[in-house]
Amino acid sequence: MLVVMRHDATEQDIESVVATIREMGYEARPMPGKQRTAIGLVGNDGKVNADRIEAQSGVLEIIHVSQPYKQVSREWRDEATVVTLDNGTQIGAGEVSVMAGPCSVEGEAQIIGIAHRLRDHGATILRGGAFKPRTSPYSFQGMGEAGLKLLARAREETGLAIVTEAIDSESLDLVAQYADIVQIGARNMQNFSLLRRAGRAGKPVLLKRGMAATVKDLLLSAEYILAEGNPNVILCERGVRSFDTHTRNLLDLTAIPVVKSLSHLPIIADPSHGTGLRAKVIPMARAAVAAGADGLMIEVHPDPERAMSDGAQSLYPDQFGELMEQIAVIATAIGTRMVPPVAAGQGAGAAG
Amino acid sequence: MLVVMRHDATEQDIESVVATIREMGYEARPMPGKQRTAIGLVGNDGKVNADRIEAQSGVLEIIHVSQPYKQVSREWRDEATVVTLDNGTQIGAGEVSVMAGPCSVEGEAQIIGIAHRLRDHGATILRGGAFKPRTSPYSFQGMGEAGLKLLARAREETGLAIVTEAIDSESLDLVAQYADIVQIGARNMQNFSLLRRAGRAGKPVLLKRGMAATVKDLLLSAEYILAEGNPNVILCERGVRSFDTHTRNLLDLTAIPVVKSLSHLPIIADPSHGTGLRAKVIPMARAAVAAGADGLMIEVHPDPERAMSDGAQSLYPDQFGELMEQIAVIATAIGTRMVPPVAAGQGAGAAG
Amino acid sequence: MLVVMRHDATEQDIESVVATIREMGYEARPMPGKQRTAIGLVGNDGKVNADRIEAQSGVLEIIHVSQPYKQVSREWRDEATVVTLDNGTQIGAGEVSVMAGPCSVEGEAQIIGIAHRLRDHGATILRGGAFKPRTSPYSFQGMGEAGLKLLARAREETGLAIVTEAIDSESLDLVAQYADIVQIGARNMQNFSLLRRAGRAGKPVLLKRGMAATVKDLLLSAEYILAEGNPNVILCERGVRSFDTHTRNLLDLTAIPVVKSLSHLPIIADPSHGTGLRAKVIPMARAAVAAGADGLMIEVHPDPERAMSDGAQSLYPDQFGELMEQIAVIATAIGTRMVPPVAAGQGAGAAG
Amino acid sequence: MLVVMRHDATEQDIESVVATIREMGYEARPMPGKQRTAIGLVGNDGKVNADRIEAQSGVLEIIHVSQPYKQVSREWRDEATVVTLDNGTQIGAGEVSVMAGPCSVEGEAQIIGIAHRLRDHGATILRGGAFKPRTSPYSFQGMGEAGLKLLARAREETGLAIVTEAIDSESLDLVAQYADIVQIGARNMQNFSLLRRAGRAGKPVLLKRGMAATVKDLLLSAEYILAEGNPNVILCERGVRSFDTHTRNLLDLTAIPVVKSLSHLPIIADPSHGTGLRAKVIPMARAAVAAGADGLMIEVHPDPERAMSDGAQSLYPDQFGELMEQIAVIATAIGTRMVPPVAAGQGAGAAG
Repeated sequence: MLVVMRHDATEQDIESVVATIREMGYEARPMPGKQRTAIGLVGNDGKVNADRIEAQSGVLEIIHVSQPYKQVSREWRDEATVVTLDNGTQIGAGEVSVMAGPCSVEGEAQIIGIAHRLRDHGATILRGGAFKPRTSPYSFQGMGEAGLKLLARAREETGLAIVTEAIDSESLDLVAQYADIVQIGARNMQNFSLLRRAGRAGKPVLLKRGMAATVKDLLLSAEYILAEGNPNVILCERGVRSFDTHTRNLLDLTAIPVVKSLSHLPIIADPSHGTGLRAKVIPMARAAVAAGADGLMIEVHPDPERAMSDGAQSLYPDQFGELMEQIAVIATAIGTRMVPPVAAGQGAGAAG
Repeated sequence: MLVVMRHDATEQDIESVVATIREMGYEARPMPGKQRTAIGLVGNDGKVNADRIEAQSGVLEIIHVSQPYKQVSREWRDEATVVTLDNGTQIGAGEVSVMAGPCSVEGEAQIIGIAHRLRDHGATILRGGAFKPRTSPYSFQGMGEAGLKLLARAREETGLAIVTEAIDSESLDLVAQYADIVQIGARNMQNFSLLRRAGRAGKPVLLKRGMAATVKDLLLSAEYILAEGNPNVILCERGVRSFDTHTRNLLDLTAIPVVKSLSHLPIIADPSHGTGLRAKVIPMARAAVAAGADGLMIEVHPDPERAMSDGAQSLYPDQFGELMEQIAVIATAIGTRMVPPVAAGQGAGAAG
Repeated sequence: MLVVMRHDATEQDIESVVATIREMGYEARPMPGKQRTAIGLVGNDGKVNADRIEAQSGVLEIIHVSQPYKQVSREWRDEATVVTLDNGTQIGAGEVSVMAGPCSVEGEAQIIGIAHRLRDHGATILRGGAFKPRTSPYSFQGMGEAGLKLLARAREETGLAIVTEAIDSESLDLVAQYADIVQIGARNMQNFSLLRRAGRAGKPVLLKRGMAATVKDLLLSAEYILAEGNPNVILCERGVRSFDTHTRNLLDLTAIPVVKSLSHLPIIADPSHGTGLRAKVIPMARAAVAAGADGLMIEVHPDPERAMSDGAQSLYPDQFGELMEQIAVIATAIGTRMVPPVAAGQGAGAAG
Repeated sequence: MLVVMRHDATEQDIESVVATIREMGYEARPMPGKQRTAIGLVGNDGKVNADRIEAQSGVLEIIHVSQPYKQVSREWRDEATVVTLDNGTQIGAGEVSVMAGPCSVEGEAQIIGIAHRLRDHGATILRGGAFKPRTSPYSFQGMGEAGLKLLARAREETGLAIVTEAIDSESLDLVAQYADIVQIGARNMQNFSLLRRAGRAGKPVLLKRGMAATVKDLLLSAEYILAEGNPNVILCERGVRSFDTHTRNLLDLTAIPVVKSLSHLPIIADPSHGTGLRAKVIPMARAAVAAGADGLMIEVHPDPERAMSDGAQSLYPDQFGELMEQIAVIATAIGTRMVPPVAAGQGAGAAG
């Protein structure tokens, strides 16, 4: 940690900071410069109360040299985290896995029909919202537990694993009961109570990046889940807010290699929410794989024109099929490959 | 609502959109142009399922002419909402009210001591966090219910009203029991479950703008609270994320007159979180009043250098006193005035 | 064009807007709604003075349905623009071309040495700055015309085409004399005088997106060049400003398919400036190709540790070689291929 | 300067950085930590080539403790810069000066008529564009030198000083001939050639902040002007790009106290461009004065509904009069006052 003093800080200000650092049990190393003095704090064990120093007279700013997160960091654990699901899909093991499905579960025929088609194209995980966080209180809010039951039926029939979103503590307990992966959405990325509960839910967690969250914020939110004892966290880049409205969000694909250098956790991309436009989903899904993503989350609807939500960004099933073929080649180009498909015979007992 | 067609949309595409609009029970009014056709939807009652149209072939975009929110809108109710607290403070009635206090409740001497000084300088509402949402799981998380009890003691002694933050459904029930105003923080602005619960809590709600929330998003979140039957919502501008790190956040004071033209709800500003720097709090507090804010939320600590959180942005009590004098003059300059102070004799029985 | 009236606009306001539209020679089509009236302007020929209507009493906002640019638009010309250089490289013809080289020309050995290595790895265009726009007046500002002469020497020896930046009218005339492509940098994207001059320079122009420019702004700036009679414009995505400082800029790869749907101009990506970090250049270069970019601009330095500028984001020549192999496979995966290399025998007379 | 090493940097990496620092003539002070080593560079005289160190193996990042600008800094010169115009107006001397007028000069009656009204309300500087940088090549581009001549006529008649924009080297020479203050617009804030030329123009310069410029970028651009020997620079906050489109730009008023603490240069605010909406100009102008601005730039048009540009954000003359009264009171509230008006008898010979 480096304490940068104002250029007009007095000798007394400097001595007072040095004294505070020593009082806290660390070593202080002043570095006088032409413009100002900086004071190095040596021996930082991650427990320094920087607020106490920052508020002192003559202090310009505190520069943190260590990262504020720990368990999610590659400096804590270098080996990649691999999340393994009941149907055999591994996320983070160097292969590309695909989660696909409609924005919302709308009914039995819809979800089971699409699940079969997605499995045929090579997806191994089915997405579908039962609890929907909507910006307007007057929008469709999801089928609730009935939706979860339909997802479980789809898993039984197809062998696909299930990922679906929890939006509060009540829905989290329900989701954890039915799903293979509990999703925490972008708007709840800093709902710390929900993160803690997800950390105790006993299921892998898919954590989406918030719309104004830095990569550091995202990793700190993941840290909440790991701190409760759940190591199975998958991060998801889904676009951030931008001044340009040509797309719904600005998909920050560089976050993928950045996360991979800072953390051992797997990271996937969601180009459906990241762009909000069907025609842009395919190129950006390809780009995410080329950038090194561990997987993709893609909205596919059997009949997008009649979808109850997000129809304009949902792929037609045939488009999804073409996309899967293209990304398989790209995966090979960069020395990886697609997660093996769920065996056609699987399903029925698969969810057991 | 206006449906803008792509320039290469076919006659059939246009007819299909027109047919869909009519099928939904509205009137369609095509407007052919040099570059493309747009189709007006006439008779929008706020229940149009735009997703269904947006997903159709040939549609470029949907432009909403009506606002998606209702009860919070000036178009729904023109008269300003006035929130009246037990100690007589009115927010939204054209006077400037001030909420002040430390970031966190740290102990009895701290909170009661500062409460007296704040009341002497003219604040009528005491802030202080008992439940703290922190980006790191390893930071101080607040005193919990013990903190709430100390706040209640401070109210008893001084007659100040209490505002404090709830971070989940458990803490919300507790906070509603002790506080005069329940605060929903920026990170929970789109925690829709919490908003709903706040709508049923029976206490006024202070709703802070999220770091990447548009004014429209903020009003939609307030709509969640009003939709549950709670009309007493106070909005708070506290800075948004920006590319410039010279301040912690970018305080968007223009949001104040913008909210006032769109909504009847009162709006205050929090220049402490909005800037993150003690020396910038005073000019920006003045600016907020000059821009027409209904009030301010200011962090003041008896000893900022020893604060357990946010010390660097907390004012010294004397600075707060000077600020109060300056804004009183500015209030007069723009034809308003400060909320009358709590009578010195008040307190003790005041909270009853 | 749609004129949206305020909800409290009077009948007289509405009639006045209708009268103004008719006075201007267009048809007005009022659309009364539940909340407010909107008035369609029919027959827009792109010459409507919207400012005049926007300033009228009762007007809430003007919504433009047509795009403000013309010649750059796919609606004006559907066929892709192909820029053909003297050495045979075609940009925009469906193949991936690569511009590579150091940030700055630093000397003869440096630029000619690296040019040979880049050609051997398949680049066909050499980049290198002779005039450098630097945020600080005290940073290295480039070799000027001496640098241009060295670039011309490198072209003679290797057959590579030359792209280099012009920063004002003086340097533009010089650059146009020596280079195959004149680069306009991000900071000059809205230097309209320079754009006009580039439109008359008789050389293809590489136009970089500004740090806060929307795609619409970028296309309008390109329109300035086409409006002067120069159709050979190549756009370049190089990252925009963001709240997250984990990378120097936020590379907006979605802009690639967005530009391709709106315009016939080719677009390339610059992951070196887009990320600012050597280790992120390779994955993002791959991602750009997967997203459909017509080419790449990559900083490569023979000895990055001793570069006079941008050393930390420059690839080592061997890394560049590996990158070229990977993107060749990705190009194939999406049905395109790399631009054919410059024949090894080429050079010497090639630039003639 | 602090060199932060990666956590996996080797002893050899660290020694190599230390050796490089010493080779450059500075002292190196390694600070080993739990997670990583940081190396302090002591004796920085502002000429360190950080690029050379940043590119070395094992280096994570360089943290600059000194500011990259010099002459504009309060650390270089603590006393406030005061810009004095021929008509006696002083900017930066602790009073509030107001520049007002139409977006564009449109004709003699318009500009001279409005100039009289503005002077009567207390403005001392007349604004009006003769050269207009427009995002579209098809928009009105200004009257050119004819407009400058009309501005000079208005000065002769009223005694107001003139501020008007230069957009390239040709127009800069002309503007410097006619105007009292040469304006560099937001889009040219990093047109470094133009800044240099403005530094040699012999007239005060008004430098507007770019739409994505940090305060540091703005100060570095001002440094270009001072470095050419022109100390008379006035900075201007006019809003930055934001994700929220409720206003044209996001007016960053906190930049005012931030600039004042970092630099001795005066700073004014332009709430007309900063908001883009007439109804928001008045509250934000008041807020700017309350935040400590040295002045304001306000668009006022005699007939906004017929303005050739920016009509929707231009005040009516009467609104301007009310605004001037309000800010005079606010100025008093914070211990300052308005610049004295130009004497009514002044004019005619005033510009001599």
